[in-house]
Amino acid sequence: MLIALDAMGTDTAPSSEVAGAMAAVDRDSDLEIALIGDETRIHRCLDDYPEHNRISVVHTTQSIRTTDSPIAALRRNPRSSIRLGLEMQRAGEADGFVSAGSTGAVMAASLIVLRRLPGVDRSPLAAPFPTQEGLTLVVDVGANLDCKPHHLAQFARLGSTYMHDVEDIENPRVGLLNVGAEKVKGTGMLKTTHRLLSASGLNFVGNVEGRDIIHGACDVLVCDGLSGNVLLKFYESLAHFIFRSFRARVEQDLLDQRLRDQFRLFDYAEYGGAPLLGVNGVSIVCHGESSAKAIRKGVGVATRMVRADLVTHTARDLETVQGGPS
Amino acid sequence: MLIALDAMGTDTAPSSEVAGAMAAVDRDSDLEIALIGDETRIHRCLDDYPEHNRISVVHTTQSIRTTDSPIAALRRNPRSSIRLGLEMQRAGEADGFVSAGSTGAVMAASLIVLRRLPGVDRSPLAAPFPTQEGLTLVVDVGANLDCKPHHLAQFARLGSTYMHDVEDIENPRVGLLNVGAEKVKGTGMLKTTHRLLSASGLNFVGNVEGRDIIHGACDVLVCDGLSGNVLLKFYESLAHFIFRSFRARVEQDLLDQRLRDQFRLFDYAEYGGAPLLGVNGVSIVCHGESSAKAIRKGVGVATRMVRADLVTHTARDLETVQGGPS
Repeated sequence: MLIALDAMGTDTAPSSEVAGAMAAVDRDSDLEIALIGDETRIHRCLDDYPEHNRISVVHTTQSIRTTDSPIAALRRNPRSSIRLGLEMQRAGEADGFVSAGSTGAVMAASLIVLRRLPGVDRSPLAAPFPTQEGLTLVVDVGANLDCKPHHLAQFARLGSTYMHDVEDIENPRVGLLNVGAEKVKGTGMLKTTHRLLSASGLNFVGNVEGRDIIHGACDVLVCDGLSGNVLLKFYESLAHFIFRSFRARVEQDLLDQRLRDQFRLFDYAEYGGAPLLGVNGVSIVCHGESSAKAIRKGVGVATRMVRADLVTHTARDLETVQGGPS
Repeated sequence: MLIALDAMGTDTAPSSEVAGAMAAVDRDSDLEIALIGDETRIHRCLDDYPEHNRISVVHTTQSIRTTDSPIAALRRNPRSSIRLGLEMQRAGEADGFVSAGSTGAVMAASLIVLRRLPGVDRSPLAAPFPTQEGLTLVVDVGANLDCKPHHLAQFARLGSTYMHDVEDIENPRVGLLNVGAEKVKGTGMLKTTHRLLSASGLNFVGNVEGRDIIHGACDVLVCDGLSGNVLLKFYESLAHFIFRSFRARVEQDLLDQRLRDQFRLFDYAEYGGAPLLGVNGVSIVCHGESSAKAIRKGVGVATRMVRADLVTHTARDLETVQGGPS
């Protein structure tokens, strides 16, 4: 198992990536990582660690900044760390790709290089939201701002297979983000989506309100990329604020175990990266401010997707739906 | 100054309403409150307090449950506490109305009884979000799920006048909720709204991302009612969770002042009710779980709207815009 890791993505690149990679291979004896980026800078960071035979470096000096326009930047940088990492996967040299670089560029390059699976009209970005009950996968968090009902229904299916395979949830509960619980609530688009999901064969638990998320009302929460993006960034910033406010107390051991557990909810680094679903491969987007721990967790998500053979299962699910009952 | 207070709205009605009303008149010597609802039940609660000559009761046994369909329920209950309270305002017997009852019913009844101001196409519900810097008014939080650019531009104007008059902000900064800061970000609807706001003469500070809200990036945050509703309910539930988790610590005086201040951010009762903007009158919706303190704060918002003469200023602003530069 080899994961291609963009070493130039975080704000502190390549140091967080190198530290995250070292921690990841230390914890997983079947894992190899290829660090993609400027070899001089990567080796300078690697020098801080004992040599590791499951870490390799793929050199390129081209990288894409988050301020660049994704498509134009990808065109100008055919050997960017993002592009190279994904090409390795297409060539069968890597099993998955992880990057904390420009989300737009990773999404665009993944669609170009890996391509969407047959039957997928839109590839959504999914993000795990920590809740009191575990994790809820929110799909989409920004890849598709304007969505039609059948897109949301596809997001539900992709998210459901993901939570089954990667988070080991037997029959994932799918919820639809809406302003009220009753099925008559929401816009026309949401009402139609409600009907599609009710008939989808998925474990659809109905509409989920903003207030139900933190209580873990569902395993997969479906929404358009605009609502999901706003919600994700709002949650991250609040979690960051709370974490920062109370961290000193936790470190000084001034909080009891129950509070420490609740507090962990707000340690976003715990939850790793956001998988791009519905592509023919494994592509994980991590936060640009990712710590080494967050990179390690992102790599962990990629390895679980690979080991669960999520892409094969997703393709099979999509075929079954398209073919109808046989 | 007389505020009509729906005494039958909260989950603990009328006890929270009565306690909130008593606290409100105690703190404001120019305030009278008319409690609208079942006089037997109201008087039973009032018996716990010394008699107060600025509290009166308007009797009705009709009330609307939050599970009822608003329009049908209003039709079936012509003397509901919501309808009566608003009718008092139209008749000049009250200056404002506050209810913790069905949000849908209060909005519908306000539009029927008070009517929209000339030049207002849609009346948005606005909610103050506590931030690190003070308050940000989010408009709309659920009255209008599908919005067109000119609706959002109107929300911006209504919210701006509100923050000027009621929160004493000199030149309120208006932000547009979006997935990125650059003006090319977002859906076609958001891009058009960005253009309208840029040309509006308002103090438009551009797109605001989910992560910027908590830092107080703007005073008025404009969005469609779907995004706003989801965000509000998510914030409320998170705040409630955090407040509950850490309250014992605060009460035991185990946190220092800085943490106590940050913690207050999550005491939602601090921030009172959500004003329905753009109607010819004052109508405030409080949370169904409002405590006495939250009711008192909701009444406080109504009195500030009345004292600032917000409705007159709003009408004048709208006229100026419609008439164009003279």
